[in-house]
Amino acid sequence: MRIVVTGAGGFVGRELVGRLVGAGHAVTGLDTMAADLPAPAQMVVGDIGDAAVRARALAQGCDALVHLATVPGGAAEADPALSRRINVDAMYDLLLEAGAAAPGLRVVYASSIAVFGDPLPAQVDDATPLSPRMIYGGHKAMMEHAVAMFSNRGLIDGVTVRLPGILARPKGPSGLKSAFMSDLFHALRAGEAFTCPVSAGGTIWAQSVLRCVDNLVHALTLDSARLPSTRAVTLPALRLTMGELAAEIARQCGVGDDLVRFAPDPALETAFAANPPLATPAADHAGFAHDGDVATLVANALATI
Amino acid sequence: MRIVVTGAGGFVGRELVGRLVGAGHAVTGLDTMAADLPAPAQMVVGDIGDAAVRARALAQGCDALVHLATVPGGAAEADPALSRRINVDAMYDLLLEAGAAAPGLRVVYASSIAVFGDPLPAQVDDATPLSPRMIYGGHKAMMEHAVAMFSNRGLIDGVTVRLPGILARPKGPSGLKSAFMSDLFHALRAGEAFTCPVSAGGTIWAQSVLRCVDNLVHALTLDSARLPSTRAVTLPALRLTMGELAAEIARQCGVGDDLVRFAPDPALETAFAANPPLATPAADHAGFAHDGDVATLVANALATI
Repeated sequence: MRIVVTGAGGFVGRELVGRLVGAGHAVTGLDTMAADLPAPAQMVVGDIGDAAVRARALAQGCDALVHLATVPGGAAEADPALSRRINVDAMYDLLLEAGAAAPGLRVVYASSIAVFGDPLPAQVDDATPLSPRMIYGGHKAMMEHAVAMFSNRGLIDGVTVRLPGILARPKGPSGLKSAFMSDLFHALRAGEAFTCPVSAGGTIWAQSVLRCVDNLVHALTLDSARLPSTRAVTLPALRLTMGELAAEIARQCGVGDDLVRFAPDPALETAFAANPPLATPAADHAGFAHDGDVATLVANALATI
Repeated sequence: MRIVVTGAGGFVGRELVGRLVGAGHAVTGLDTMAADLPAPAQMVVGDIGDAAVRARALAQGCDALVHLATVPGGAAEADPALSRRINVDAMYDLLLEAGAAAPGLRVVYASSIAVFGDPLPAQVDDATPLSPRMIYGGHKAMMEHAVAMFSNRGLIDGVTVRLPGILARPKGPSGLKSAFMSDLFHALRAGEAFTCPVSAGGTIWAQSVLRCVDNLVHALTLDSARLPSTRAVTLPALRLTMGELAAEIARQCGVGDDLVRFAPDPALETAFAANPPLATPAADHAGFAHDGDVATLVANALATI
């Protein structure tokens, strides 16, 4: 099977491509910058907003599409027009083009818990209405409907998975306001002090990148009859406090958790560390899963950084 | 208050502009073709997809915006790219421009029950997920999220109302596949035979244009704290069969209902005349209402054709 992965150079994309190549799939990766993808995956470098670039990505064939490419939250907030161009317009065009090339192909769309907006209600479950506030979440929500519509029309066979915080991202600027969750891993593994911009009691929803890739691979072959009519599921995630996370990372890295100081920024606390209890029966029913427990999550996350 | 009404030349738009002018508001109407609007309403004629046309519509001021302009269902299905240009892109631009001109202005957005898709589930209520199949419904659903996002950001103060079948439209081509509901009125009032393309037992959700205008006017001043976090409500509608509707129109027009022959088209029956029981508690709570009973609905509809 030839699988096109957009955003293949990102940290989730690279792990996914490796997994797919290992399973014997042919992979075409698309990203804005060249990335070392495992052979024999092919890489197309360019702007996904450019029709010619998308055409090159589809030119080798496309039996399934995993759409990870995105202008992330912080960058979208800083440049809403860019987010519109990439997160809405380019994706809409890509769905049309992929569906024309291979009608009814499986499309896995990485949406985000940002579709729920902030502040979140006291509990989030499959009945929670979408009321995005950030540009990123708004554009992700708009495109969830496009995936549903095109699936109902038979153009594609779409699966939307809303990703929680994925741990751990590489060091360095990501454009994501939630990057502090990953930076905590890098600091403690290096034995360095870390100032956490949310409180020790701040609650997050998290999944390791390994578990996220398991879920994306599952989404590629899932029978879509197991999905809700919206084609969208909120992925299961462990709900844990930043204090718990810091203590477990410190334990596994053999350092003291007194390296971590908590200096909450109210805006970040509200947006990323006030996550209420989460129930994901639709995703559970469809066979998606989280890491199981905090120790496994941290071990999985440390394994990829 | 200066109110900009897009789609002002349509049958709902003309009734709304008359009501607003009568209440002492200044009105700027925008439509693709010139329409006789009641003085002193001003008319801007042009393509809403053209930034210069939108600028002219906003140039006299805009304290509130009622966005009725749309590529309707049948036309959107025939030309999805046109629907995207008008129903998505032009509306998105209009929201940005109106919000920049008058931050936090009230925007009333006419969405549609087409957002639920077809076939509909066994009951529709405020928890029914959106799963559009038609291009029209898909684009309307996408823009519901844009209204919510821009409202949550304070750019606008949006109210999305999902319209059921509105009775009765003028005779002639409308681009709407549901036009048969209105054509029934015109035929019986003229004492002419009518072949109804759905069954006598086919169930529709309907509202008279007078009641629809009541609801739009209510939406203009409603406290948005009474709305769900999505900013969207499905308007209350009478659920009735085409047979009941035909009998009541015939009674009020003093003709025999044997003028109506039912020759169901399966696609139209599924899309427009298989509407399940409807519950609209969010809209009821926010003060929206339907016509009350079939006799009132028919009398209201006959009053405007």
